[in-house]
Amino acid sequence: MKTCLIALDWGTSSLRAYRLGASGQVLDQREAARGIMQLENLGDAAFERALEEACGDWLDDAPAVPLIACGMIGSAQGWREAAYITCPLGIEQLSAALLRIPTRRGRDLWVVPGVIQRGDLPNLMRGEETQVFGLLAEQLAGPADAPLLIGLPGSHSKWVVVEAGQVVGFHTFMTGEVYGALLGHTILGRTAVPGGTFDAASFDRGLDVAGSSLGGGGVLSTIFSSRSLVLTGELAGQEQADYLSGLLIGHELLAMTRLCQATTAQRVVLIGSAALCERYLRGLERRGHASVRLAPEATAMGLWQVARQAALVELRHTEEI
Amino acid sequence: MKTCLIALDWGTSSLRAYRLGASGQVLDQREAARGIMQLENLGDAAFERALEEACGDWLDDAPAVPLIACGMIGSAQGWREAAYITCPLGIEQLSAALLRIPTRRGRDLWVVPGVIQRGDLPNLMRGEETQVFGLLAEQLAGPADAPLLIGLPGSHSKWVVVEAGQVVGFHTFMTGEVYGALLGHTILGRTAVPGGTFDAASFDRGLDVAGSSLGGGGVLSTIFSSRSLVLTGELAGQEQADYLSGLLIGHELLAMTRLCQATTAQRVVLIGSAALCERYLRGLERRGHASVRLAPEATAMGLWQVARQAALVELRHTEEI
Repeated sequence: MKTCLIALDWGTSSLRAYRLGASGQVLDQREAARGIMQLENLGDAAFERALEEACGDWLDDAPAVPLIACGMIGSAQGWREAAYITCPLGIEQLSAALLRIPTRRGRDLWVVPGVIQRGDLPNLMRGEETQVFGLLAEQLAGPADAPLLIGLPGSHSKWVVVEAGQVVGFHTFMTGEVYGALLGHTILGRTAVPGGTFDAASFDRGLDVAGSSLGGGGVLSTIFSSRSLVLTGELAGQEQADYLSGLLIGHELLAMTRLCQATTAQRVVLIGSAALCERYLRGLERRGHASVRLAPEATAMGLWQVARQAALVELRHTEEI
Repeated sequence: MKTCLIALDWGTSSLRAYRLGASGQVLDQREAARGIMQLENLGDAAFERALEEACGDWLDDAPAVPLIACGMIGSAQGWREAAYITCPLGIEQLSAALLRIPTRRGRDLWVVPGVIQRGDLPNLMRGEETQVFGLLAEQLAGPADAPLLIGLPGSHSKWVVVEAGQVVGFHTFMTGEVYGALLGHTILGRTAVPGGTFDAASFDRGLDVAGSSLGGGGVLSTIFSSRSLVLTGELAGQEQADYLSGLLIGHELLAMTRLCQATTAQRVVLIGSAALCERYLRGLERRGHASVRLAPEATAMGLWQVARQAALVELRHTEEI
């Protein structure tokens, strides 16, 4: 089927390439370990090469088709910096601020800017905004005018507040990266026995500690219990990692609902890795949230929407396909 | 001067040896990188060798003098496990529970047990309890019957509540180790520029964020501002580490005062590395604490007090020395 857009989700650790058809449907997709972390300090040539490796054949086959990317590729450590756009914003503002990078092939790469929420503690995102607009376009999020909370769990979890199709605010929690650093580089990893399947009971136990008065000591204090409970025989080494995961996600959810002033009736959509989203779903439901849904990855759709809004691709009637 | 006790502060990363005189005064001291982390899994012989290297000559010269140790040497990963004693406790309970390890030399090593505070989230310490009783004996802590809060900042900060000479409770914060893991093993280290002298203004800024309503997002959220402020040019890379240090210590102090129900009038004593104690002193004073003092390291005195209480050494009048 005819290629209408080549869309790249180019992040810190990986480069995902999508070949999209006339209604934005994914015709083909690929993934390579060519994130900016592998490329930074190597100069333009390294980015050019990664692009060719990822989709040089697609570019050959469709010489007139536009090329768009979102994610850390537009950061100061990426190929070129696409300045942050200030929130609140809609897809119009985002699409009006694409950065053009001319490539050696003579083809332009259009880069979606990141989003900044200014304030005493500024918040930043790159890539998640595109996914959010993809989700909204897919109408998987319910009525467009009702307030919505979108959670994107990951190394750095983002919680995005959407009202009437606009991103009105967001927050960052470094939960995933902190979890990895604690198990990999502190004493907590010395008692934790890796491997095994998800231990729901230990995860819930961690959630409950964070959500109860015991959690009042905060993360720096409660995480030590993942060691002390093992040393006192009240938690098995095999259970420690999921208990710690529950603790951290519990602390995150408690703080997030406070920061976002979210009620348990608020509509919540989670996007991200299935296993991680399941943990967040479990945590939200355990805290009484009654309207939580999981949505599939939506970056390709977001890039399609941005490209359309920017008039890089034309709107066609489905009949013409 | 005559040796009356050989006392070891044998922790995770180092072994400190003290030769003490008839009133517990330090006649000589040494330090070696022979903590249990370097010795575990190597068996008894490694511990024996480390002991000989540290103070074999002292043992030769004073064949009848008792030998005592506190710290992680008595943990499950140490030489032998000295079971935890339950808090509340005084020096009497601690001294009555010394673990005897016979050495190849035919000399007994007496090991001070750790202390456990039981509860939903058990707390544990090994070594700090000895330092606390040393401090109390030195009467550096003020009137013995008034409630006292003793802070021992470090990789794992301990906050010990003392009433009438008894340890009635304590809390652990993994602040120091988390700080190291964040700067060394997460994205936060990529913008932080190491080196330089203590930047008080950035440290205070972090303290103030943690202590204000901005801190309500908790550690997982606020730490990201140490990156976002650098990316937005509102914080220099050279300032990031001290800002992060202020943030974490601020979160710790806020939670600690809550957990310990400490008022700003409560007497507080800090023991530990001078540079770190200065940061905690600064943080406490900024939060309005009016009675905070720094005290010198007191482990040798604590070991002396425990040995005396256990009748390992006799009480002598100063005249006899």
